Amino acid sequence: MLAHGIKFGKTVGIISPAGCDDAEIINKKISDFRNLGFNVKVGAHVFDKYGYLAGEDKVRAYDLMNMFIDDEVDAIVCFRGGYGSARMLPYLDLGVIKRHPKIFCGYSDITLILNYLYKKLGLITFHGPMVKSDFSDLTTRDSFFNAVMDRSCNYKIDLNSFDSVQVHNTKNISGKLVGGNLSIICSSLGTPFEIDTKDKILFLEDVNEKIYSIDRMLTQLNLANKLKYCKGFILGNFTPNENDMKEHNFTLNELIAQKILPLRKPTIVNLPFGHEHQNITLPVGGSVKIDFEAGLITPVKEFVL
Amino acid sequence: MLAHGIKFGKTVGIISPAGCDDAEIINKKISDFRNLGFNVKVGAHVFDKYGYLAGEDKVRAYDLMNMFIDDEVDAIVCFRGGYGSARMLPYLDLGVIKRHPKIFCGYSDITLILNYLYKKLGLITFHGPMVKSDFSDLTTRDSFFNAVMDRSCNYKIDLNSFDSVQVHNTKNISGKLVGGNLSIICSSLGTPFEIDTKDKILFLEDVNEKIYSIDRMLTQLNLANKLKYCKGFILGNFTPNENDMKEHNFTLNELIAQKILPLRKPTIVNLPFGHEHQNITLPVGGSVKIDFEAGLITPVKEFVL
Repeated sequence: MLAHGIKFGKTVGIISPAGCDDAEIINKKISDFRNLGFNVKVGAHVFDKYGYLAGEDKVRAYDLMNMFIDDEVDAIVCFRGGYGSARMLPYLDLGVIKRHPKIFCGYSDITLILNYLYKKLGLITFHGPMVKSDFSDLTTRDSFFNAVMDRSCNYKIDLNSFDSVQVHNTKNISGKLVGGNLSIICSSLGTPFEIDTKDKILFLEDVNEKIYSIDRMLTQLNLANKLKYCKGFILGNFTPNENDMKEHNFTLNELIAQKILPLRKPTIVNLPFGHEHQNITLPVGGSVKIDFEAGLITPVKEFVL
Repeated sequence: MLAHGIKFGKTVGIISPAGCDDAEIINKKISDFRNLGFNVKVGAHVFDKYGYLAGEDKVRAYDLMNMFIDDEVDAIVCFRGGYGSARMLPYLDLGVIKRHPKIFCGYSDITLILNYLYKKLGLITFHGPMVKSDFSDLTTRDSFFNAVMDRSCNYKIDLNSFDSVQVHNTKNISGKLVGGNLSIICSSLGTPFEIDTKDKILFLEDVNEKIYSIDRMLTQLNLANKLKYCKGFILGNFTPNENDMKEHNFTLNELIAQKILPLRKPTIVNLPFGHEHQNITLPVGGSVKIDFEAGLITPVKEFVL
């Protein structure tokens, strides 16, 4: 299920389902976001603070539900990640969301919501920048616009335009995308919010984690059979922890060679999505084709629905 | 199943199922450990280095298996934790271990092995100091000796002897202990090495984690129904991350009040086990009685077997 894309001038609902922020920053970033060309409606509790959370669990869920229900709101973009989605999810009413499908965008901690809404409702959600994000990078901005502003989701990702990208086991595949932040995906394992990766193309990114911690998480995903049945992998930004450059360590590439490549699935490494400056938008639940000869990731028909 | 306890002069097998270390440190710490009164036998790959691991996964498993098989070895104590048990566990032969039950001790990353051997074989294992640990604290040392050196496991923990200990929902209970390092327990969820906490008394500790990360892990355990069916909780050392003292934060006590106490189970907080100087030994799979009036944790009959 793909909700109607939005247009410039339409209303974006802004919520904070996870971490809180200071009012000055929130106001500044909402103003910047409005300047992208959207009208905005700000959730009642976006300015709340409860520890590191933007209000208590139930009020963050209340804001999210209200944005889906509100007919004046055409799409929902989260203000920021941080932590807290897992505490809020048990309070969502999925039936109500199903009757009001909308574009929903975020990443990092929001990974949990993206994949849960897709898994339970079939709603295609968007792993992409948030209101607090920096939209100054043109690739980031165009990718976001292309993904959320057109019902046909008519964007393509040209792998050749990114110098950093590496490819392995280059057999062309089609499949639905799921994924997001590796830590968050691992923190969903064993819970009702666990990601379903079977027959999917799994994309993963993380930031500021130590190499052994990335190893531990990939090992957990593997032991939980979350890698074995994927169609392929797309790995994004994995900015290592800067205090983790000591002598006895694997490099990220060594880790990928140990944990991902032996699975013999088509794999793209270093696609710029996630916590770095450049963060291209990926549709969770969207069907894509990866053509390695052409170096393209493109939406396929069922994605357009 | 409780293996025979050891005596001074008996042989302790030393292995490194997880992280590596420098030869100088290993030699020094093995010498110190020998001075506690034990003969030692050092695993063939304890000095190996493969990234942060003490050798490749299969050779670490080989060392562990060999120590169980070797009739000259009376008990097994891990050299250190770090990371790596999860990578090694798939290579163990449980049938062989079952035919050669032995005292097995460690903590931190070793949590995974302790709980897995208990869950699959019923073998009581020991969450306690390792060869690299500091045994200068008398409580640490005595607790270790009492736990591993007597088939009757004839030790008791006097809660009143620790100023830091707090108790909640003080209803006396009996049950089998499981648990250990919170991060490691969460990293087992969804895998074949997942901890079984049903009807158990769950003990947890962690070190150098940010408060939001402890929140996330307790939330995951709760959503995975790993807290709901416990008989009670024992929380140990939770030394917070020192860079995590910023403005918007919960305290550890606030987190316990939010995530643990509402479950209305008997709960002991701040028992000194885990990564700090004082680390008392707890038997994974051992049956204990918690008597809040007397302020005592004592083994019960089935534990002695």
